[in-house]
Amino acid sequence: MRNNKRGGITYADGFLSSGIYSGIKKEGKDLSLIYSKLPCVAVGTFTTNKFKSYSLIVTMKNIKNPIHSIIVNSGNANACNGKENYIKTKEVVGKLAEKLKVKEENILFGSTGIIGAPLPYQKIISSLDELINSLSCSGHTAAAEGIITTDTFLKEFQINTGIKGRKKEIFIGGMAKGAGMINPDMATMLSFITTDAVIERDALETALKQAVDKSFNMLVVDNDTSTNDMVICLANGAARNKRIHYNTDEYFKFYQSLENVCINLAKMIAKDGEGATKFIEVKVKGGWCEKDVKKVAKKVCGSNLVKTAIYGCQPNWGRIIASVGSCKVKFNPEKLELKICGINIFQNGNVINFDNNLLRQKLQDKEILIEIDLKQGKYQTSSFGCDMTEKYIKINKEYE
Amino acid sequence: MRNNKRGGITYADGFLSSGIYSGIKKEGKDLSLIYSKLPCVAVGTFTTNKFKSYSLIVTMKNIKNPIHSIIVNSGNANACNGKENYIKTKEVVGKLAEKLKVKEENILFGSTGIIGAPLPYQKIISSLDELINSLSCSGHTAAAEGIITTDTFLKEFQINTGIKGRKKEIFIGGMAKGAGMINPDMATMLSFITTDAVIERDALETALKQAVDKSFNMLVVDNDTSTNDMVICLANGAARNKRIHYNTDEYFKFYQSLENVCINLAKMIAKDGEGATKFIEVKVKGGWCEKDVKKVAKKVCGSNLVKTAIYGCQPNWGRIIASVGSCKVKFNPEKLELKICGINIFQNGNVINFDNNLLRQKLQDKEILIEIDLKQGKYQTSSFGCDMTEKYIKINKEYE
Repeated sequence: MRNNKRGGITYADGFLSSGIYSGIKKEGKDLSLIYSKLPCVAVGTFTTNKFKSYSLIVTMKNIKNPIHSIIVNSGNANACNGKENYIKTKEVVGKLAEKLKVKEENILFGSTGIIGAPLPYQKIISSLDELINSLSCSGHTAAAEGIITTDTFLKEFQINTGIKGRKKEIFIGGMAKGAGMINPDMATMLSFITTDAVIERDALETALKQAVDKSFNMLVVDNDTSTNDMVICLANGAARNKRIHYNTDEYFKFYQSLENVCINLAKMIAKDGEGATKFIEVKVKGGWCEKDVKKVAKKVCGSNLVKTAIYGCQPNWGRIIASVGSCKVKFNPEKLELKICGINIFQNGNVINFDNNLLRQKLQDKEILIEIDLKQGKYQTSSFGCDMTEKYIKINKEYE
Repeated sequence: MRNNKRGGITYADGFLSSGIYSGIKKEGKDLSLIYSKLPCVAVGTFTTNKFKSYSLIVTMKNIKNPIHSIIVNSGNANACNGKENYIKTKEVVGKLAEKLKVKEENILFGSTGIIGAPLPYQKIISSLDELINSLSCSGHTAAAEGIITTDTFLKEFQINTGIKGRKKEIFIGGMAKGAGMINPDMATMLSFITTDAVIERDALETALKQAVDKSFNMLVVDNDTSTNDMVICLANGAARNKRIHYNTDEYFKFYQSLENVCINLAKMIAKDGEGATKFIEVKVKGGWCEKDVKKVAKKVCGSNLVKTAIYGCQPNWGRIIASVGSCKVKFNPEKLELKICGINIFQNGNVINFDNNLLRQKLQDKEILIEIDLKQGKYQTSSFGCDMTEKYIKINKEYE
């Protein structure tokens, strides 16, 4: 059994973390640190938004280097806030590097929060000692707390890969920040994943990209896109396993575990969508190509009308059908099949005589499964989202 | 001055209309008729949804013929409700043709309401006599009432074109039904427009297509798309003007008036978005091409985060910037300019030191203007939308 103090971002050997309050937010932890004494291979996927956070710009620049630490603040996006904030960002990284006795280029930076406000870099700099002094193997919860904004619960997940290292198994763990601005087009929030595997950089990069495509990129909370989204994976090699190369048996085992971590974190983000009361999974199969099934799954999962219907436990399946029909993908409306909560609703262009009361009752569940068969090919995928409630409006009309 | 009983859909000479309650909805008028004794040239733009209402299918089939009448029901979309409903649709049209002493092929049909329910065609057929007997030149208000669903006010607009006919000026009038499922990708709701002009079919078709592109197609209420959307324009020639041909001076005058009618009806639809308290116009200029400005205008106008911020009168301009940045269009983030309610917010990649209290105060207005300059080229456009409120959720979680 694993040391039960470890978990999430410190589940893998050799990683420490901490999370503290530095005064950026009104209350709650707002600054987190991840640290590995061993230098890490680092890979990431980043927002496709043309406006990018200065923290993200620094991270994209440094990620090819051996990485020792990631600093993350919440409460301030450090984006669109004037070029002088790029200098401030570099200052924060410089000070942290000095204190950790590494180089600036060995550090990554993530930020989340309101766009356009100046980075309170003095607050961050004067909190660095406390942040470093609180580093520990049980600091994963504090770190997970330091990166959240409107999240209502912490998002951590860890897994044993089953792959043997020199004296121990390889572990993977991670944490995420989600809730708002979760968009279908990209790596869509903050997530940090650590592993003690020894793995080739290209292999880790390919694995992360693919896992993100199946998980975070299939998340739809609203249809907006942040300037700050990133998923970072660090591998410090503490397990001292035989190096994992692309397309080997070990690689596929490792990939499965990584995908598992990503999907579980993604589902937590969906469940914690702003104001959400229900988790929605849209499974699309029978697609002509991967692009088609992704498009349909995200469109249905992101439809305000579908989301409000599910919130209201309404058997208003016509909205799902209309949403599928509005996608410019290859399928024949006369052949489409639709199931909601396991009940057959629509087949061969016709509604089936289903039990409306049973459906209404099943729609009371906290997890709603929508299954669509395009009957056109062999591709399939799932998207993850949540219902839409008055609370979503309340949170977003007040958030500043 | 015009006979003041005429207006909206009966503003142009030779058009009569009516609207009655036939029992499809729980209450309120639900069946409307437009009639011209003179045969009309008819043109239309239709939903791009793959699932199409049977009413719309009949209309698309008949539209090339001389048209005498349009029947429209609300409360039932007549879509995805089983193929037997196509037969019922044809029966309704057949009976109406018989009573009006025209051919089936001279009639168009529009429907709006819930998707998937069987068409209560017997109720419609037994209401036809009353519907025909109530036809009058003052029936435009009743007709506008018969086509609405969750709309909170009637949408009618009429205009004098300034183009001379034989004894009178040419008129254009119209009505629309909006409120929900207003999507950027298409002709997006029901709208019927009539004119007494004599105009070449191709010229009318081109004019309508272009006017719809500038108006209804720039509407964004939510990001969903109906199975039933159509905009129809009938021209009965009662003004006996010299036939209008494409690309002539008269054509451009006619086009301006038609665009005016379409934009005014589109703005009414935006103002009456489900649960809306504010009208939003997003003007985008400086685009590299038309596609780019349209994409940005619709993206910003359709952003749930922008809509909720405006509802909350929040100066959270970062959401607008992030929304523009997420569009895959040609522009340089370092050059972009943003104004909200006439106040300069963002220039040359930097936020300006603007008066936050003044902005907060201006955001209390009922009409909000967002101006974006991409600084990349000469194209410009506007999109029309509304804020997003708790009431939107309430309406859509309960609508069945």
